[in-house]
Amino acid sequence: MEIAQNYMGPGATKTMIRINENACVSGTIIVNREGFPETTTLDSLTAATYSTHMRNLSHHASNALKEIDVTDELVVLRLVSKKTEAVVAPDDEFHLIVVMRRQAK
Amino acid sequence: MEIAQNYMGPGATKTMIRINENACVSGTIIVNREGFPETTTLDSLTAATYSTHMRNLSHHASNALKEIDVTDELVVLRLVSKKTEAVVAPDDEFHLIVVMRRQAK
Repeated sequence: MEIAQNYMGPGATKTMIRINENACVSGTIIVNREGFPETTTLDSLTAATYSTHMRNLSHHASNALKEIDVTDELVVLRLVSKKTEAVVAPDDEFHLIVVMRRQAK
Repeated sequence: MEIAQNYMGPGATKTMIRINENACVSGTIIVNREGFPETTTLDSLTAATYSTHMRNLSHHASNALKEIDVTDELVVLRLVSKKTEAVVAPDDEFHLIVVMRRQAK
C-alpha cells in the first residue's frame, strides 16, 4: 500500500485496508481524473478494464441523473451480475471501484 | 392495475403491488422491449424520462460486463443519488425500474 500512502491521507489508506479485509471483496481500484488506475489490489489488466468501463458507466449515469433532475448528483453506482458485483463511488478527484464476489444465498 | 393484469400474470401483478407497498418506493415502471413504459405508478412524463435513461444505462452496463467477461450477465443496476435511488432489473421481454426515496440516516 506504498503508492496509496503517497497519494492518499492515512484515513483513506485505513478505509482501503478495511474494505479489502471484507471476505467478499476481490479487489479495489482507485481511478484518477484521467481514467487511469492509481492504486489497485487487482492485476493491472483487470484493473484497467474495470477502470475504463466503470468510469464510462458512472459518467453516463451521472449525465442521465442530471437530465432527470439537474440538482441531483450520483453517489454510488452498483452493478450486480451473475458472477460479480461492482460498486463505483465517483468523486471529483478520484473514482473508487470495489469488485466483489456474489454472495452465496 | 388493470393494464398490468392484461400483460402480466397474477404472480407479476402481486409482486408489483408488494413492491409499491414499500414506504420507500415512489413508483415502479415496466418498460417493454421497444423502450416504452408499459405499466407505471408514476406520472407519464417521469416514467418516460426514467424509461429512456435507465434502459440506455442498463444497456451500457450490460455491454461493459460482456467486455469484462463474455459469459457474465447483468442482474441488477442500482443508482444511488443524493435525492433518489433507482433500481433496474433487465430482462429479455421487459425491464423493471423501481424509483425510491433515499432513506433518512
